[in-house]
Amino acid sequence: MKIKYELLKKEQNSKGRYGILKTNHGNFETPMFMPVGTLANVKTLTPEEIKDMKCGIILSNTYHLWLRPGEDVVSHAGGLHKFMNYDGPILTDSGGFQVFSLAKKKDIVEEGVKFKSHIDGKSLFLTPELSIQIQNKLDSDIAMSFDECIPYPADYEYAKKSTERTIRWAKRGLDVHKNENQSLFGIVQGGEYEDLRKLSAEETVKLGFDGYSIGGTSVGEDKKTMYSMIDYAVKYLPEDKPRYLMGVGEPIDIIEGVIRGIDMFDCVLPTRIARHGNAFTRNGKINIKNLKYKEDFTSIEDDCDCYTCKNYTKSYIRHLIVSNEMLGGRLLSIHNIRFLVRLTEELREAIKNDNLLEYKENFIKNYKK
Amino acid sequence: MKIKYELLKKEQNSKGRYGILKTNHGNFETPMFMPVGTLANVKTLTPEEIKDMKCGIILSNTYHLWLRPGEDVVSHAGGLHKFMNYDGPILTDSGGFQVFSLAKKKDIVEEGVKFKSHIDGKSLFLTPELSIQIQNKLDSDIAMSFDECIPYPADYEYAKKSTERTIRWAKRGLDVHKNENQSLFGIVQGGEYEDLRKLSAEETVKLGFDGYSIGGTSVGEDKKTMYSMIDYAVKYLPEDKPRYLMGVGEPIDIIEGVIRGIDMFDCVLPTRIARHGNAFTRNGKINIKNLKYKEDFTSIEDDCDCYTCKNYTKSYIRHLIVSNEMLGGRLLSIHNIRFLVRLTEELREAIKNDNLLEYKENFIKNYKK
Repeated sequence: MKIKYELLKKEQNSKGRYGILKTNHGNFETPMFMPVGTLANVKTLTPEEIKDMKCGIILSNTYHLWLRPGEDVVSHAGGLHKFMNYDGPILTDSGGFQVFSLAKKKDIVEEGVKFKSHIDGKSLFLTPELSIQIQNKLDSDIAMSFDECIPYPADYEYAKKSTERTIRWAKRGLDVHKNENQSLFGIVQGGEYEDLRKLSAEETVKLGFDGYSIGGTSVGEDKKTMYSMIDYAVKYLPEDKPRYLMGVGEPIDIIEGVIRGIDMFDCVLPTRIARHGNAFTRNGKINIKNLKYKEDFTSIEDDCDCYTCKNYTKSYIRHLIVSNEMLGGRLLSIHNIRFLVRLTEELREAIKNDNLLEYKENFIKNYKK
Repeated sequence: MKIKYELLKKEQNSKGRYGILKTNHGNFETPMFMPVGTLANVKTLTPEEIKDMKCGIILSNTYHLWLRPGEDVVSHAGGLHKFMNYDGPILTDSGGFQVFSLAKKKDIVEEGVKFKSHIDGKSLFLTPELSIQIQNKLDSDIAMSFDECIPYPADYEYAKKSTERTIRWAKRGLDVHKNENQSLFGIVQGGEYEDLRKLSAEETVKLGFDGYSIGGTSVGEDKKTMYSMIDYAVKYLPEDKPRYLMGVGEPIDIIEGVIRGIDMFDCVLPTRIARHGNAFTRNGKINIKNLKYKEDFTSIEDDCDCYTCKNYTKSYIRHLIVSNEMLGGRLLSIHNIRFLVRLTEELREAIKNDNLLEYKENFIKNYKK
């Protein structure tokens, strides 16, 4: 069975929308933040912890799993859910972004992308068909089309050529997609150009996917440009399908995305900054290594309901991080993921109460960059 | 209140003994294996996980906590239990072994030991009094006397001088020990020499401690010598006090120790080998990185009741370890600690059933080194 999206409420003063996404592995409300489980685990955490944080869905990376342990191992295990012992919804990306971000040299041709493994330098060739076939085997609930993530800035001619190719790749992926229990999302590219975003959105929608995502943001552009990219694309996306803004996890960007009609977000940010000792708070990010927390026997956030805040002090977490104890990164990961999931919970409430813009103003007032 | 040891049963065919140790933070049965929580955490694990593994007591390292975060931070937090959010029994060592194992150069004088920090090379001076004062502040349930761990081999004259000094240090520590809720153990040294072990045991017992440990084993000597060191010491230890063999965690050594009348063991082995991909099994240690586990979709041990074995396959854990995912070390740590705690559970049963030697024979038959 494919996923089913139900739009339950539109906010009056913005494009914000509250909905529910039904999958073969459970339902979740949107907007929702997805933590990233690159290699079939959200770094340092167990599935039970993910569920405790009320994450509706997690993301795992096709490129990484293709290299290690290989999609056949995962398939022989009975798919990604069984392999990692997680029975909640899982989305896999297509590998397109990793080719963009991890490969130092790459050769993009019509057929696909030639590049070298970030692990051992081995030559690799990823095509739209192969990406889908790998994802079919991983058996995630939602697969993504293979795309090229356009760098920023990119000149118009390059962006146009790339965007048109991504549309052809989307069609090729769709043609080989065989997993009846897996949904497939198309990806809108187009760089910073309004007409290319329109072209990409319209043509991708014509192909008919189970959901649509917006790619090519968070690649170095300023906030204004990023929010424009969302605006350019969203207006051409159908209301009855979920919309996913890829690779975005800064609190303010999630809020701006929700205001613009986005339903799903993913980012490595909460777990990556955790391992470096950073924690989200309502007043902005803090670095727990700061000397001022040495004897701070309060939790990171008084009103946070996460396992970390209910049980540990800043002083203890600081000690763990300063001493390179892995439990420190684990505890901060729990807090940071829960922080973003709670943010989406509050955004859902704000949509229901038609006070999304007010919520944003209040949030910004407290949150120091 | 000090700890209280009750000897409940002596095994008929050996010196093995089953008992219970009562502390201000709960009771536990002996023999018991203690996992090591060097820096106020058992690496990668939470207190809840420690309890799930049925660890009766954990050990934490005075030397490490002295350097980071400092005993005053722990004391201001309300002691080690509150600092790390663990309300079960905690034993702290004295720092003597870390001076022995971590300091490249050291100058042992009557007053104490001069050496350099393993972190930043800063000059440090640890004395019997300071070790106890630090432990008083850490507020563990059981503190250890400051001793010199004699290297192996050591010539007789050196061993004699060192053993006599450790006895004087034990007296000095006892004199400054002020924490009424903390028990203090004496440490029997004496190297490989029978008469020095006798001297050390008798003189330490005369001073009157709440328990006694045997130190200076597992420092490079062969198994026969190690077991002799235990035999030399145990016969002079009182029956009504607990006995603790320091730094021993190989399954066969735990069994041999229990047969010789030991009640408590500690070792970093289960967590350290876990981080390198090794797991204890009834058939000996296995390295999960081995290619043969790539598609092994069974748990590490079918009959193991640990969280890891109940939820994950060798294939998945192998993938995590090979990919340097910290969750892999975490899952193996859980299995390995539970393996040793289960071993002590079975040894307790064997004592009750008077079949300890038979248990040992069966264990050895299966366990390949």
